[in-house]
Amino acid sequence: MLYTPQKELFNRITKLQTLLREKDIDGALIVKSANLFYFSGTAQNAYLFVPAEGAPVLLVKKSFSRAKKESALENIMQLVSLKKIPAQLAELGCKSPATLGLEMDSLPASTYLFFQQIFPGVRFTNVSGLIREIRQIKSEYEINLLRTSASNMDKIYRQIPGLIKEGMAEIELAAQIEGMARTAGHMGYISMHAFNQSPYFGHLLSGESGAVPSAFDGPTGGPGLTPAHPQGAGWKKIKAGEPISIDYVGLWDGYITDQTRIFSIGPLPEKLQKAFDLALEIQAAVVEQMKPGANGSDLHELSLAMAAKAGFAENYMGYAPDQARFLGHGVGLELDELPVLAKGLDARLQPGMVIAIEPKFVFPGKGVVGIENTFAITEQGAERITVTPDELVRID
Amino acid sequence: MLYTPQKELFNRITKLQTLLREKDIDGALIVKSANLFYFSGTAQNAYLFVPAEGAPVLLVKKSFSRAKKESALENIMQLVSLKKIPAQLAELGCKSPATLGLEMDSLPASTYLFFQQIFPGVRFTNVSGLIREIRQIKSEYEINLLRTSASNMDKIYRQIPGLIKEGMAEIELAAQIEGMARTAGHMGYISMHAFNQSPYFGHLLSGESGAVPSAFDGPTGGPGLTPAHPQGAGWKKIKAGEPISIDYVGLWDGYITDQTRIFSIGPLPEKLQKAFDLALEIQAAVVEQMKPGANGSDLHELSLAMAAKAGFAENYMGYAPDQARFLGHGVGLELDELPVLAKGLDARLQPGMVIAIEPKFVFPGKGVVGIENTFAITEQGAERITVTPDELVRID
Repeated sequence: MLYTPQKELFNRITKLQTLLREKDIDGALIVKSANLFYFSGTAQNAYLFVPAEGAPVLLVKKSFSRAKKESALENIMQLVSLKKIPAQLAELGCKSPATLGLEMDSLPASTYLFFQQIFPGVRFTNVSGLIREIRQIKSEYEINLLRTSASNMDKIYRQIPGLIKEGMAEIELAAQIEGMARTAGHMGYISMHAFNQSPYFGHLLSGESGAVPSAFDGPTGGPGLTPAHPQGAGWKKIKAGEPISIDYVGLWDGYITDQTRIFSIGPLPEKLQKAFDLALEIQAAVVEQMKPGANGSDLHELSLAMAAKAGFAENYMGYAPDQARFLGHGVGLELDELPVLAKGLDARLQPGMVIAIEPKFVFPGKGVVGIENTFAITEQGAERITVTPDELVRID
Repeated sequence: MLYTPQKELFNRITKLQTLLREKDIDGALIVKSANLFYFSGTAQNAYLFVPAEGAPVLLVKKSFSRAKKESALENIMQLVSLKKIPAQLAELGCKSPATLGLEMDSLPASTYLFFQQIFPGVRFTNVSGLIREIRQIKSEYEINLLRTSASNMDKIYRQIPGLIKEGMAEIELAAQIEGMARTAGHMGYISMHAFNQSPYFGHLLSGESGAVPSAFDGPTGGPGLTPAHPQGAGWKKIKAGEPISIDYVGLWDGYITDQTRIFSIGPLPEKLQKAFDLALEIQAAVVEQMKPGANGSDLHELSLAMAAKAGFAENYMGYAPDQARFLGHGVGLELDELPVLAKGLDARLQPGMVIAIEPKFVFPGKGVVGIENTFAITEQGAERITVTPDELVRID
């Protein structure tokens, strides 16, 4: 089992402390699994107090022994009850904060109201944005984990052509790929920042399924198996001459890479093939511009302009009224990290950002074609993390 | 695809409206997927307003066309932006509520604060508890879905003995079972009420893995593959003479059944076999008492007393300091529904409750043995929903 090195945790906490001081926040209380793991190395049931100055304290509800083993932080204490958080922090010499940062985007409202009770007189502020800003810049340690995640997922994707059979249900193909990935140690559970959005492994969609919109904030949704979780692979049978889009995440040691490849039994209709080729051209043009200082908004505009020029504006990233208004998104411990490359969003690229770019075209009744790869921004430009060849894989 | 019948939705909404009137709450605004699906039949990105009197309104962000297809409710409108919720409700003739119920246990704090802004002067109150109370009583329609879920899962469990090989990693076995279940239409994604708790498929744990505690609020956790999601199957190799505990959920059409079976290659150590037999005895004694009017607290006490009498108090539902303090929990659309059968909790059994009973014994360094089945409470007593035989399955 891979534990996050102490140096890595200290660097992350130092960044948070710098931002807390800049914003006059006295400390942050971190609860959400993805953030807790990022700053402490453990995702046990725990509360991490990071003061603006001084050492962080991890108060662990369950399991204390696991948290001690997993986290390289120095101050790790057993927490008896949530009510005791202020008293335990005081015992450790932490000054009561005047302003305390919480992950307001994720923390349940009732927990927030409970914190108001146990920290009387304290002003609360939302630090989700600060944390997302810090997390969007990956260290070399993290980028190495992402490289491993991508390389493991590539080995799975290379076996997909041998699994696809005409007439099989999407869910049968999904089951085989998911099983192979799990055998190789894919951790399965996908974390998301957004509420109510979690996919299961990703979206495997064939033909018209690829054009069924959903609650999911992306170019595809798919019918899924049930309206209770309306996205992803369903019972539709895979046919010849339609795009089979496999948008699955690599997920090892907590780190997500995102990639989409298109497969087809026999040739695709000319229009879909043309749109697929255009997606590759858009990807190439965007990647060329993915350098430090470039603005995500401009990259999205570039992709929109290329789609429009080729006559595919109405199919870009979905069709009305469900077109997704972005070109790409950060990935890491969660599937929907910063930056978001979208019209009107000022997102200047910086070294260390890791971004999935996914130009896709959706045709009602026909399906989705396109490409998705994950890239790291370096001083020199975009380094491609996902390694599976881009080509449409034709099965004959 | 199975859509929830209109009559079912109307019955559920009527129950909620009755409780809202009893508590002097003018309406509830429902957002969380599991609740949204329960009351509207759809889990699209939407906001369901249920007034204390009159027809509910579903305001849909995305996808409107999907929501129209999936939900048998009558008033379904496109929602342009969250800010417009009060204006759109007013247009439809809904009176502005003086008191508005929210799912405060799940709703992010920032959304709650945003609702405070867009509903100025409105008093907010937590209706999570009311909704959980309603959802704990299942209709015949729901119990039928649970029966199907259990019967599908039984077909998977019956194939498990043929998959277990000495020396294989837990994750390899997990991958095969998960793949088989998915091929049969298992929906995969498990909803939970609790924050930060979600397991992936369940816990498949062999030998000492079964005794590794975790953040998960249950008798088992397991190391998992990474501290980023520290539970469930990991890399440990399966050996002869140790318990292989498979605690996986059945999950079809949104409905969860929960069951655990123990497998072993060759015989178990005598002490573990004895504890397994005791778990079956506890189950039988508890099930005998699971009638309308019985108190969950008493059932838990009964199980504790039987464990203590046999000299296994220290191993019951874990070992110190991580012993779980319950005997069973409701299941349905979420894994952790009401009632919870636990010491000191007043939970009177009622017809229509569906409860997973899971007496288990955990031995440090050795693993977990026990049983788990899902039962529906009827006027006559407990009807067993999960159908796989209870016996420890020995592979030789």
